[in-house]
This record gives sequence, structure tokens and C-alpha cells, in this order.
Amino acid sequence: MKVRGKNYRTIWMKDSSVFMIEQNLIPFEFKIFESRDYKVTCHAIKTMIVRGAGAIGAAAGYAMAQAAMQASPKNYSKAILKARKDIESTRPTARNLFYAVERVFSAALISPSDAIAEAEYIADEDADASMNIGEFGNKLIKNNFNILTHCNAGWLAFVDYGTALSPIYTAHRKGKKVFVYVDETRPRSQGARLTAWELKNEKVPHVIVPDNAGAFLMSQGKVDMVIVGSDRIASNGDVANKIGTFEKAIVAREFGVPFYVAAPTSTIDINCKSGKNILIEERNENEVLFQTGPDKKGKLHEVQVCSPGSKAFNPAFDVTPAKYIAGIITEKGIVKASGEAIKSLFAK
Amino acid sequence: MKVRGKNYRTIWMKDSSVFMIEQNLIPFEFKIFESRDYKVTCHAIKTMIVRGAGAIGAAAGYAMAQAAMQASPKNYSKAILKARKDIESTRPTARNLFYAVERVFSAALISPSDAIAEAEYIADEDADASMNIGEFGNKLIKNNFNILTHCNAGWLAFVDYGTALSPIYTAHRKGKKVFVYVDETRPRSQGARLTAWELKNEKVPHVIVPDNAGAFLMSQGKVDMVIVGSDRIASNGDVANKIGTFEKAIVAREFGVPFYVAAPTSTIDINCKSGKNILIEERNENEVLFQTGPDKKGKLHEVQVCSPGSKAFNPAFDVTPAKYIAGIITEKGIVKASGEAIKSLFAK
Repeated sequence: MKVRGKNYRTIWMKDSSVFMIEQNLIPFEFKIFESRDYKVTCHAIKTMIVRGAGAIGAAAGYAMAQAAMQASPKNYSKAILKARKDIESTRPTARNLFYAVERVFSAALISPSDAIAEAEYIADEDADASMNIGEFGNKLIKNNFNILTHCNAGWLAFVDYGTALSPIYTAHRKGKKVFVYVDETRPRSQGARLTAWELKNEKVPHVIVPDNAGAFLMSQGKVDMVIVGSDRIASNGDVANKIGTFEKAIVAREFGVPFYVAAPTSTIDINCKSGKNILIEERNENEVLFQTGPDKKGKLHEVQVCSPGSKAFNPAFDVTPAKYIAGIITEKGIVKASGEAIKSLFAK
Repeated sequence: MKVRGKNYRTIWMKDSSVFMIEQNLIPFEFKIFESRDYKVTCHAIKTMIVRGAGAIGAAAGYAMAQAAMQASPKNYSKAILKARKDIESTRPTARNLFYAVERVFSAALISPSDAIAEAEYIADEDADASMNIGEFGNKLIKNNFNILTHCNAGWLAFVDYGTALSPIYTAHRKGKKVFVYVDETRPRSQGARLTAWELKNEKVPHVIVPDNAGAFLMSQGKVDMVIVGSDRIASNGDVANKIGTFEKAIVAREFGVPFYVAAPTSTIDINCKSGKNILIEERNENEVLFQTGPDKKGKLHEVQVCSPGSKAFNPAFDVTPAKYIAGIITEKGIVKASGEAIKSLFAK
């Protein structure tokens, strides 16, 4: 995807460094963050310099590869096992993280160069899957569709293309008229900051709406479909995604608006029976209590946006039960959110 | 209600001045705004120095009284008619505004001093109604209840006591254990800024939650009831309130959580057939795109919180159809949200 006319991936590796678009700074600054140590990459995942299902997966894979390169031959297995635990403790809800760490760890058991190759393979797979999701999802989008999306499951959330936004980009590229309602997505405002920024870069018509506007828009027939991404999908079709997703799904069903989830099969946790088994990350209350942005002169300030002295509760995700979901758009095709349909994806 | 140990009303009149708590500054500063001219009072309503159903009503009544005092005897009727139109154009959705203006205008036709008396009477009525809403609503609250509220329908939104928060204050004062989930209520964050501030002043245990957390909380059985206020109630029981209310109502019904609306009968627009006839105010997009708050040193900054170059859509209210509402808590008792029950309130 292009930023200021130049092609970028969200994250990549060169020699022993991992480079990533510093997502905490977007949309106000565009900078590349370089990590030369797997622990710094862990820190980048934790502090959301890199965020989004696929991008976290790629970052975790690269971190594991860095750890293998950094490990001394003397206590190699011990060192990479410790690194694995460090990486896995950064973001507990993200399925792609565990998926990538497991694969790169197995490769690292052979050699550091196998680990690097596997990490690169995972990143390429992620980009390819996103592209295919765009092709499949595009078939659901009719000309003049108004689409609502929550959070950011665009190319910033993956290595390239994205998931929820990938069908929109494909439809737009193919000349269909699409309009996107971008949920602000408090508390971290990934919709208002990242999705809007991506859509502007891709010249897709859109408008930012407060998360509170969903029922109003849908009750007025202004939304033809909802597409969101996912951080983890259980084997029964329950979907963990950014807090607020569940609310949109309930409201969409109330108004007969089809609610789709777009995710690569790597997001599906086949060993996870249902949404009840998904651990929901609770993040620091300061994400709710404070917000950071530039003033008119471009100078960044962190300002308090809540009443001083009150606490906040900040669950990062929620789980949308399968029954609310019209379908899951994967790189292998669109399937129902059901145990059987999901099993069929892994059948070959 | 007490602020720093001192009793205040949200708005009051003395001689020809209207005084009001400057709500745009809360929770970071506590200041009293003085308006000596009805046009300044109009401006205060429009810019939300004073906001909330009952407080707007009182402000509109006082503005009408000020206009009567300011009008020269030569073209008195013409002047107060013009003022009426000025006041009515400030906030189109607020029922109490039109209700108050109509009453004070009729009194002003007799004399300016009649107008003042009527405006004072409306303010007192509002405070009394809020107190009674607290008594009736308290009966619905059991010990250890967790209550979710949206926006601010506390004493800042009325002359005193409030509506949605009044039953909570009454229950708390009577020694019941209550806990409040305070919806942040983007874009203007009246929950995080005003409701949390009120609850802290009243020492009611509470936590601020992002608007997105509603379905998550309710799906986990953490919410025993929802109470919200209203800006206008149609004669069939449809309720206009802050954007996002409708979404909470749908989600509450999905989980069997009773959803109550607390409002004085002055908020009921008996001539308004249904929610479809309620005009929804669309406010400036900058309320979504920017936020203002203090940095660590207490200095206020307006910062951009969305991607530059994207537009925002900012509907201020939505309409919750009667079928989602468990009951309307009024100063005359709790009634069903139905045409018949509402008619009965005006029967005597």
C-alpha cells in the first residue's frame, strides 16, 4: 500500500532489524521504528507501536527470529524458550501472535536461519491472505454500498492490504462506488486515526462517526453492511474483536444489516471451543482518561478528557457470538460462522 | 446539590442577570457565568455553557424573562416575539426549551414582572420534579445494584437533583449500595466529564467506561438496570436522548436488562405523535475531530483526535422507540412507555 506515493509494508525485517510503521504516531506523523533486539520488538507490540491482528503476528514471528539470532549457542534452547514466553505475554488476545510464535519457534529449534525464513514466510502469507480476502469480500459489495467498519482492520493492522478494509479497497479499485462510515473506536480511536488515514490515502469516500451513532445510522437505513476484523476466532465461530464490535453486531441484527467478519484462517484458533475460552485483555485506564493529539501548531499534548479523580474500566476486546455473524470472509472463501463451516476450512 | 461543600443550583436569576454554572469548563474548572442580556443567554444555550433538558428549559425561561425586561414599551410585543424566535432557534431538539419559552412568553404578554415570576416558577417546578423522580425511581433500585447511565442527566442537566441520576442519589442517601457504570458519551463526553464529576461530588462509587463497553458489560451480567434521561418524549412513548442511547436500549433488551428513562412530564411533547416527528440536531463536526482538556500542568489545549483531512458526522441525538423502554420515571410516578399511559399523566 502507498504512503505519500511510496510502497510500504506495515512491518518488515532486514538483516537483524525489524522495521515497522510507528502506529502510535499516525495520523499525525509518519515514522519508521527500527528494533534491533527481540525485547524491543516485544515492547513495540505491548505499547502498540505495531498493532492489529496480522501485523502483531508478523511482529511476533520476527521477534522470535531475532531471539534465535541473538541467542548464544551455549544455552540456545533455553534462550529461545524464554523469548517465546516474553513474546507471548505481550498481547494475550491476539491469535496471530501465538500462531506465529509457535511456527517460528519450531523453525528456530532447527537453526536461526530457518527461523528467519519462517518469519518471512508468515509475513508473506499474511499479505497474500489479505489480498485474497479483498477478492472474496468484494463479491459481497454492490455498487453504491454504504459500509460501516469498527476499529482498524486495514493494511496497518496486517502486513499489507488488510482484512475488513481489503474488500473495500478491491471494490473501490474496480470502480464500484463505496462509502465508509468509520467508527471512531474509543478509547484508542483506531477508526478515527488509522482507518480514516488509510481511506484518505486510498481516496475512498468516508466519514468518521462517534461509536454512539451506529443505531441511529442503521435505523435510518444508511448502512448496507458492516465489516470488521478479528483478533481471534473460536472454532464455533465466536469472534473476538475490538471492544464495541459486539454492540454493533447486536444493532446490525436488529435492523437486518448483514454483519461480516474478515480474517485470515490464521486468526482462527481451532483449539478454542468457544468465545467463553478467549481471554480478554484489560488495558490501562489512562487510555480512556487521557488523549494525545496535536494542537493547531502541530505540537503534541496529552490532555485529560475525563473528570479528575474518577477511575475508568478499559476492556480491549469483546466476543461476538457466532449467531450474529452473516459470514467470515477468509483467504479461502466466505464461510458461515459455524463449527462445521470453520472445520471445512482446515479439511485438506 | 453541593459543590465543594456549598449549595448550588445549576442556573438562577438575580435582578436582571442569569447566573449559570459554566458547564463547558467542568470538570476542570468551576466558574459561574453571568448573562445580563437575553441574547447572551441564547448564546450560552447554543454553546452549551448551559446544557441538559431541564437546565436548558430554565435558561430559556429566564432568557424570555430577560427579553421582556429589556424590551422597550414602544415595540414591546414585537420585541418579545423576536426574542422568542431567537431563543427557540438555539437547540431544536430540547422539549423543555419550547415548553418554558411558551409559558414565559404568555406571561410576558401581561408584564415583564409576570414573565420573571413564571420563569422562577418553572425553575422551581423543575427542581421539585427532579426530587420526586428520585423518590419514585429509588423504588426500582435494589441494594447492590449496578446501574449504567449514558450522558449526563444529573443535577447539572436540571436546576437541581437531575433525572437519571436522581434515583441513584436518593438510593445512595438512603444507604443502599449502588455502583454506576458511566458511559463516556462521545463526542462531548458528558458522562466522563459531568456525570463522573457529579458522582464524585456525591461520593457515589462509579467507573467511567468507553461507550463501546456496553454489550461486553451486559453480556457478563454486570448491569442490573440502565437509566437515562431524555430531551423530548413523544406522546407514543418514543424517547429522544443523547446519541448512543438507542444503541444501549437495543443491547439492554438483548440481555434482558431493564431500560428506564427518567424525565419530568415537561419533557413530554403531547403534540408530537411519534419519534419520527422529532427533529434531530446535527452539531459541528469539530466536536468529534477535536477534544479539549488540561495537560499535566493544568493548561488547557484543544487537540486533534482524528486523522486530519477526514470529515465527521455528528448527530447529537437519537430516538429510542417505546418498545425498548421498561418505563418512564416521572415526577408523577413510573409509567409505561405507551400512548395510553402517557395520556394518563395529563388526565387530571
